[in-house]
Amino acid sequence: MSTNRLEVDGNRLWETLMRSGEIGPGRSTGLNRPALSTADGEMRDQFVDWCKAAGLTMRVDQVGNIFARREGSDNALPPVAMGSHLDTQIAGGKYDGILGVLAGLEVIRTLNDRNITTRRPLEVICWTNEEGARFQPPMMGAGAFAGIHTLDWVLDQRDDDGERFGDELERIGYAGDAKLAGHELDAYFELHIEQGPELEAEGLPVGIVTGGFVAFGRQVQFHGETAHSGPTPMDKRRNALVGAAYLIAAVNDIGWKYHPDARSTTTRIQLWPNKYGILPDWAEVTVDIRHPDRKTAEKMADEVSAAIAEAGEKARVDVEVVKEWEFGCDDFSDDCIDLLRKTAGDLDIPYAEMLSQAGHDAYHVAKVAPTAMIFSPCREGITHNEGEHIEKRDTLPAVNLLMHAVLERANRS
Amino acid sequence: MSTNRLEVDGNRLWETLMRSGEIGPGRSTGLNRPALSTADGEMRDQFVDWCKAAGLTMRVDQVGNIFARREGSDNALPPVAMGSHLDTQIAGGKYDGILGVLAGLEVIRTLNDRNITTRRPLEVICWTNEEGARFQPPMMGAGAFAGIHTLDWVLDQRDDDGERFGDELERIGYAGDAKLAGHELDAYFELHIEQGPELEAEGLPVGIVTGGFVAFGRQVQFHGETAHSGPTPMDKRRNALVGAAYLIAAVNDIGWKYHPDARSTTTRIQLWPNKYGILPDWAEVTVDIRHPDRKTAEKMADEVSAAIAEAGEKARVDVEVVKEWEFGCDDFSDDCIDLLRKTAGDLDIPYAEMLSQAGHDAYHVAKVAPTAMIFSPCREGITHNEGEHIEKRDTLPAVNLLMHAVLERANRS
Repeated sequence: MSTNRLEVDGNRLWETLMRSGEIGPGRSTGLNRPALSTADGEMRDQFVDWCKAAGLTMRVDQVGNIFARREGSDNALPPVAMGSHLDTQIAGGKYDGILGVLAGLEVIRTLNDRNITTRRPLEVICWTNEEGARFQPPMMGAGAFAGIHTLDWVLDQRDDDGERFGDELERIGYAGDAKLAGHELDAYFELHIEQGPELEAEGLPVGIVTGGFVAFGRQVQFHGETAHSGPTPMDKRRNALVGAAYLIAAVNDIGWKYHPDARSTTTRIQLWPNKYGILPDWAEVTVDIRHPDRKTAEKMADEVSAAIAEAGEKARVDVEVVKEWEFGCDDFSDDCIDLLRKTAGDLDIPYAEMLSQAGHDAYHVAKVAPTAMIFSPCREGITHNEGEHIEKRDTLPAVNLLMHAVLERANRS
Repeated sequence: MSTNRLEVDGNRLWETLMRSGEIGPGRSTGLNRPALSTADGEMRDQFVDWCKAAGLTMRVDQVGNIFARREGSDNALPPVAMGSHLDTQIAGGKYDGILGVLAGLEVIRTLNDRNITTRRPLEVICWTNEEGARFQPPMMGAGAFAGIHTLDWVLDQRDDDGERFGDELERIGYAGDAKLAGHELDAYFELHIEQGPELEAEGLPVGIVTGGFVAFGRQVQFHGETAHSGPTPMDKRRNALVGAAYLIAAVNDIGWKYHPDARSTTTRIQLWPNKYGILPDWAEVTVDIRHPDRKTAEKMADEVSAAIAEAGEKARVDVEVVKEWEFGCDDFSDDCIDLLRKTAGDLDIPYAEMLSQAGHDAYHVAKVAPTAMIFSPCREGITHNEGEHIEKRDTLPAVNLLMHAVLERANRS
């Protein structure tokens, strides 16, 4: 990039990333900062402080999504937004989501430095509970914003300890009063680490996301009966764990059946009483399947439904799907994607066009606003792992692309 | 039974059972009183108070086993003992184990009432952690008494919250100083509810236990790697839960293969991080298999070992057997069993001879002292369930059989 061109301050961006990396430390080098935890609250406070210092106006909606606004010259127009999330997995990395929010802040700081005013206002958004580590489904704040979940439903979700979403949101001080509906965005751009190895392998600094895997989530409960695990004959048992195990094994087998494009996963099980010597009468598992092709994803979902019923029959327990969800990125804006392509070309930034395999807030936002995503490389594609790592020099091209695309969009007549 | 014959006081026994039934209430009608819980400590205190009021001398050994002694006329002779356990499952019944201890106390009280002194001293024993609900393996106190586990090993076991057995024993005040070794018993008689439906179905008040199922326990750990459950391709995943699920399913299938005599069980799984969106890198399950025939049980154990290895391979995770144990009741004393048969005949109590399917403290005690067991009926065989229930009138014949057999043994020349 020419030195005459507007560029973000990479060191300043990195300082914010490193400060964030101190809040909610994990077991080794990563973070344990699930949504609505005390650490999540602390990080939000830090973000709000930074935003206020940058002259932004804060707005928190009823599910805790934070909108930090920089006025434009025509404030009757809807804002151009950047953002992602600040929550992490409980053994997560320092960059997943966080980079997208703090890159937005850095864009604002750079425009402040240069006294650049855009026509449309700008907003940096932190979405609540993208990870779904504590409250399922994931991308809950963006989903509520997009009208996919109702406010009451979101507030009533409970974590594995029985804590209520609404109460925890209140506890950390982010139960805002801004209404969920009616906040129009001119466009939404989300920068995120790739969470795959492709960019690194090809030596490219930017991925422009043209679409993504279709994902289906199912939360399934098994209802059996407690009994002594010793004397109870096999044909009298109603062991909820056995039902769950048949399903988990079948879900894994379904992923392999559609290998290499498919992903099928179970990572979480709740069980009661979960003790030696007594058959558990209750189990809950969360199943997730993904495929780039919607038809195949739907076929996999049908096979999972059959596996749920079969697992219940084999274990002689009752089964119930208590939550289900779906996300994908069929809805990204051609207009926004073209703007990213053109801007990358102007900036001489080489890029690949790619599919996203992970879910992102942008998937839901795309239902209500023109949306596009930018990926930047991460080491070996390692993520949702404390070893997640990115390099500054490989990341800055994506941040500059974000800034220039946002400027272009915000100044459009 | 003739009214001239010595009989226990059923109402008094029932009062103690009902009092015990108030300590550590479960969610409905049962108990939640796992070993070394605060409630277990409270129940032990109540038992000790009752014993002291009955004039017994208390002795607590280094793993918390309680021996309540009534002197005889020749106290150089080893005591004849009765007992079982006062701990329960976390959704257990009010009688499992408890009946055996409190029946022993009622026998003592009856002898006190009649001023009957036996030649040998008598002891009522409460064994520590029979259930294994919190610390595995089950029957830990009796196992330590029999020399199957070392003292240090027992004290170092940890529950699922990481609490240490020795610390918890100290906390509830039952880290005694009596040595584990060297306490000889002349004989040990354990009365227990059947935990099966046979006696009720046949309308019999007593089962004389002639042997039992051979059981093998395995605690297995799976070691994988955390990663994002979305993008990670199937062939790069090392999901510890998937390994555990393949094993749990295989263990259940092995039980069915040897149906109807076999039992094969998994009731407990520990997992980390156990969250949506991140592959868990660690799982631990406890597997239990049982069969009345030792050779078949060993064959099943071999198949479980093969299933452990196969589950690890299919899930691409490392597997490790971290604990294993075995119990059975090959070792009951013909002499003691004959005494029970003869006494039941004398008392005109109809009985069945039967196998025990559950594990009992008596299995371990049988390694070091002449041992036998008496079963009494329980409703529909329901146990390790808060709905466990027994009737007084159906239980008293077994308690009287216990008393008369103990008297006979204690007075032998």
